Amino acid sequence: MEKINKLAIVGGTHGNEFTGIYLVKKFEKFPDLISRTNFETKTLLANPLGFELVTRYIDTDLNRCFKVEDLENSTNLNYEESRAKFINQMLGPKGNPKFDFLLDLHSTTANMGLTIVLVNNHPFNLKMAAYLSSVEPDVKVYSWINPGVENSFLNSICERNLGIEVGPIAQGIIQADLFQKTEKLVQISLDFIEHFNEGKLHHINGDIVVYKHLKVVDYPKTEDGEIAAMIHPELQGRDYQKLSPGEPMFLTFDGKTIYYQEKTPVWPVFINEAAYYEKGIAMCLTKQESITV
Amino acid sequence: MEKINKLAIVGGTHGNEFTGIYLVKKFEKFPDLISRTNFETKTLLANPLGFELVTRYIDTDLNRCFKVEDLENSTNLNYEESRAKFINQMLGPKGNPKFDFLLDLHSTTANMGLTIVLVNNHPFNLKMAAYLSSVEPDVKVYSWINPGVENSFLNSICERNLGIEVGPIAQGIIQADLFQKTEKLVQISLDFIEHFNEGKLHHINGDIVVYKHLKVVDYPKTEDGEIAAMIHPELQGRDYQKLSPGEPMFLTFDGKTIYYQEKTPVWPVFINEAAYYEKGIAMCLTKQESITV
Repeated sequence: MEKINKLAIVGGTHGNEFTGIYLVKKFEKFPDLISRTNFETKTLLANPLGFELVTRYIDTDLNRCFKVEDLENSTNLNYEESRAKFINQMLGPKGNPKFDFLLDLHSTTANMGLTIVLVNNHPFNLKMAAYLSSVEPDVKVYSWINPGVENSFLNSICERNLGIEVGPIAQGIIQADLFQKTEKLVQISLDFIEHFNEGKLHHINGDIVVYKHLKVVDYPKTEDGEIAAMIHPELQGRDYQKLSPGEPMFLTFDGKTIYYQEKTPVWPVFINEAAYYEKGIAMCLTKQESITV
Repeated sequence: MEKINKLAIVGGTHGNEFTGIYLVKKFEKFPDLISRTNFETKTLLANPLGFELVTRYIDTDLNRCFKVEDLENSTNLNYEESRAKFINQMLGPKGNPKFDFLLDLHSTTANMGLTIVLVNNHPFNLKMAAYLSSVEPDVKVYSWINPGVENSFLNSICERNLGIEVGPIAQGIIQADLFQKTEKLVQISLDFIEHFNEGKLHHINGDIVVYKHLKVVDYPKTEDGEIAAMIHPELQGRDYQKLSPGEPMFLTFDGKTIYYQEKTPVWPVFINEAAYYEKGIAMCLTKQESITV
């Protein structure tokens, strides 16, 4: 497999996710922290105007702007669509990128701890996920792949990439413990790539647990489209825990429990993510699988 | 003391504080919940456009728009300034209001549990705070009074009022446990007022612990005005806990601890509130006092 010569650490793809933004600022101030012997590292604050206004986005979610068709469409030019084209020029173009690896730093209001988000099954990404979760056993691996649908995340510019999600944390704040954990995971990621380039990582084989995306679930709604229920208190905060048929999912505002009614258990993630209310996502359901890399 | 004939429950003074907003929506759908025998209760969603766009405010913080001078100024008419004048017409005017009591529902990313915010020392408000904290011992009372400065909060329209802050919770989400706790506190508040109107509450006397506002503290900043440090992990989440001279306050991005260096202990609140980054407030310092009501 080809060596990695150029790597980008991206923060602030969403302007109100401060953990990645202030990490990028820290790395820009102290570049030695991310310098390694055998590849070049660049940092990028992806949505600077979103950060200035402390909002996820100005016009549209930047992390849904990276389909080839949209990148090549010269008529859609709102703020994030324009930024996507600029970033695609800088790091890409998608499919034939100047950069060999992207690391995109996100945060979530869901209790997802340290999560690695995979958007494809590239063996390098799987090996790196296996390594990171062996060094940091708290790390979870979420494979967010919709078969047959082109991924629209910034990371999809490169085949080789990882997303990091950290939570629970409110939008618009820095929390020292999660900041430090994310920074450590970035450091281990860079070390992994340095060793990979040195040919030292052929031995990484083993089983990892992957949470594979199945589908999203919306909040119960009224006829007017208003939210009619909250995440049930027994489910709140239980990301990556098994949800079995008959267990509580939602609690309506008038006190009725809505139960999970399908036939097989699932493992929900992104439970109660603030930015997903408008997307009609109360949580994502996954299945837990052990795979060999 | 005059009876309370008209009371308003206000939610969404900040458009991204969902706890109060969805409580107001619930009360509008089930008005029996807030109906009492001897006073009239009205609900108000204070910043509907802010809620629609899931943002604290559109142009300016609505909860800083209620100084008499600003309410009477007919030239400042941005969205929140206009809303403030409308709300002042509906519930006020400030100083001679049509409503006798305001209950304004807020939430915070700080770990403030259930907090009652006092903006004046009206004996009714103090008695009510004493009652609520006797029924719900977890309730804290924060007296946010800057002597000699007119209060600019929505609540300041009426002399008799309470603010409720609940946290920690991210902006833009509903969390069932905190929703239920806030709802219960609203119910107890209404019960208190019903009993007061019946003349049954003359016996409420006693000591309560009040956290009196001293001053705000900003984040350490660089020469460019950028944040240079985070809330120290040993202080994060410790709202209402004593901070003694020599204890950690901040952790700079390059790993240096900044200690609290004044001579007397303080009790910080609003530690790491997302909306206060732009206000230059990392936390508010208070002193703990026991007062007799």
